[in-house]
Amino acid sequence: MARILTVSGSPRIPSRSAKLLEVVAREAEADGHTVDRLRLLDLPADALLAARLDDPELAASMRQLELADAVAIATPVYKAAYTGLLKCWLDVLPQLALAGKVVLPLATGGSLAHALTLDYALRPVLQSMAARHVVQGYLVVDRFIESDTDGVTTISGEALPGLTDVVDGFLQAVAHPPQRVRAAS
Amino acid sequence: MARILTVSGSPRIPSRSAKLLEVVAREAEADGHTVDRLRLLDLPADALLAARLDDPELAASMRQLELADAVAIATPVYKAAYTGLLKCWLDVLPQLALAGKVVLPLATGGSLAHALTLDYALRPVLQSMAARHVVQGYLVVDRFIESDTDGVTTISGEALPGLTDVVDGFLQAVAHPPQRVRAAS
Amino acid sequence: MARILTVSGSPRIPSRSAKLLEVVAREAEADGHTVDRLRLLDLPADALLAARLDDPELAASMRQLELADAVAIATPVYKAAYTGLLKCWLDVLPQLALAGKVVLPLATGGSLAHALTLDYALRPVLQSMAARHVVQGYLVVDRFIESDTDGVTTISGEALPGLTDVVDGFLQAVAHPPQRVRAAS
Amino acid sequence: MARILTVSGSPRIPSRSAKLLEVVAREAEADGHTVDRLRLLDLPADALLAARLDDPELAASMRQLELADAVAIATPVYKAAYTGLLKCWLDVLPQLALAGKVVLPLATGGSLAHALTLDYALRPVLQSMAARHVVQGYLVVDRFIESDTDGVTTISGEALPGLTDVVDGFLQAVAHPPQRVRAAS
Repeated sequence: MARILTVSGSPRIPSRSAKLLEVVAREAEADGHTVDRLRLLDLPADALLAARLDDPELAASMRQLELADAVAIATPVYKAAYTGLLKCWLDVLPQLALAGKVVLPLATGGSLAHALTLDYALRPVLQSMAARHVVQGYLVVDRFIESDTDGVTTISGEALPGLTDVVDGFLQAVAHPPQRVRAAS
Repeated sequence: MARILTVSGSPRIPSRSAKLLEVVAREAEADGHTVDRLRLLDLPADALLAARLDDPELAASMRQLELADAVAIATPVYKAAYTGLLKCWLDVLPQLALAGKVVLPLATGGSLAHALTLDYALRPVLQSMAARHVVQGYLVVDRFIESDTDGVTTISGEALPGLTDVVDGFLQAVAHPPQRVRAAS
Repeated sequence: MARILTVSGSPRIPSRSAKLLEVVAREAEADGHTVDRLRLLDLPADALLAARLDDPELAASMRQLELADAVAIATPVYKAAYTGLLKCWLDVLPQLALAGKVVLPLATGGSLAHALTLDYALRPVLQSMAARHVVQGYLVVDRFIESDTDGVTTISGEALPGLTDVVDGFLQAVAHPPQRVRAAS
Repeated sequence: MARILTVSGSPRIPSRSAKLLEVVAREAEADGHTVDRLRLLDLPADALLAARLDDPELAASMRQLELADAVAIATPVYKAAYTGLLKCWLDVLPQLALAGKVVLPLATGGSLAHALTLDYALRPVLQSMAARHVVQGYLVVDRFIESDTDGVTTISGEALPGLTDVVDGFLQAVAHPPQRVRAAS
């Protein structure tokens, strides 16, 4: 099975983006995949901002990405785009760091008015990093992300079918790496 | 094998976008796929602009798309985006017209300065139409598109490896529709 | 006072985009400006799609733009972007057709989920045409556009303050063409 | 005269973006404007990434922006967009932090292939912050930014007229805040 990395780009704790990724992780693990978790806020800020690649924690996060077959990225929408924190991490990665990988872009936000952020802002960045397949993404409106007292998160209301669809598309793409086939001549 | 539709969005004849699609079609046919060709300029202009879906030629073009497993779309870059002609045709299609399909976005333009058009302008439109997989696209600079006296087009110079890569990625994605797989428990 | 052109990019009649522009026109005329109206659907479709610049009606529309100091453009949101009809007209214009002009971008759509279309899709196109000032735009959700039996349109609900703000910003920018000033030495 | 803030979003020293801003600052000071300089890399990284608004240096940078009538922002192009460092700073600002202000967006990059970044990626973010006027921006290709032994930067080659144009447009917009004018009735 595949190795999947979840990347939370929220600069806040607790974070709806992190919770959303837990829902994805649960589903991926249920399919038999291995899931690693990366919370960008845990990385040393000065190494990240100044792109000091020899920092051990930063280097470890890059190694986690390298090992992953697929990545689920979640970011709150700030100023009509992804967070600066997420972009700082993407900036320190090699230009082709997503080559061969499947990527699921997710966002959280206060209203549907931010829904196009994923396709107009985040997706072009991911494409520039040579991602093999950036599957359909989804913005979950904040009020549909709920956690119970044990910290287990559920997605409610109209957001559930939308999220389920894209997670399903992600796990489909993860399971079947494409390969070119020629007709027998 | 798959059924592939090429869609040329250029409002001019002859068109570098159409020539570029011929290179893709040749490669796809060599793999054993069936290729249909659609030149949007051939559609009746008034039916297209007024979205008269009962027009037989317009309806036929929509049927061609429905039957296709994959689509290669090429557009010249006008005013930092795809052509109005291409968007007119996309506008008359159902909102989810690309559901389940693989899409290869291509562009032609006078200079590399337009390269980001595919990812920032065309790709979000294709994603909104529920495409299963919009693979990496490519902008071919005009001067690298050459046709010989028999009308056979070749892509030259630095544009060739770039185009070859994305056509390969397209034909890989076409050959292997993804399917979700769960680990045996 | 200034000469203002309103450009409706909707392929449908009646059109909420055209109605929205009437509200802008009324306000502009109340300030003493002259308003010309252009409905792109009235242009000959084949001349528009094939960019036949010698068509008299198409040429007249281009002349209207040339004469205008400012332009208010409204488009419904189709497939996460402006309409193909609008882009067809922009495509036939000279690359720098908006040089020196103030532009107000407006959209209509079924939900707020399309709100970012103006800034991520339409604005870059207008900027590429050398617009002097593309002021803040606004998407009016369809249900807030109402017409009485005399055909007079009003904008209601939460959309009214938003629209009023951008129209005010537009008319401010129209009234005061900027000019570089140096401190006396 | 006006108060102008230059904001350098480069995470590297020396920085072509910072040099480019010096050229703008020189021109603005020659017109009699006051110029403040902000290099985002100088801000405390952890306060910036975690949005700790009580940090004195971060608060001071926010105060500088508040006092400014206009802002010139320069960023290298990383991964087809602005830097994460720049976005981190924009993220900590109030949503309407650019209200009433004129903004000049500038970029530096290795090739023209990144030229559309300003309009498709950075401009929508600036618009979302209520900027009064984001004037035409410009990407200067790295090789046209040269510094002499005294550290004085000049812009050379084909980049000079392009930059001169947008700086002129910026200083024009700065000098003349728009104001709505009604015809005498």
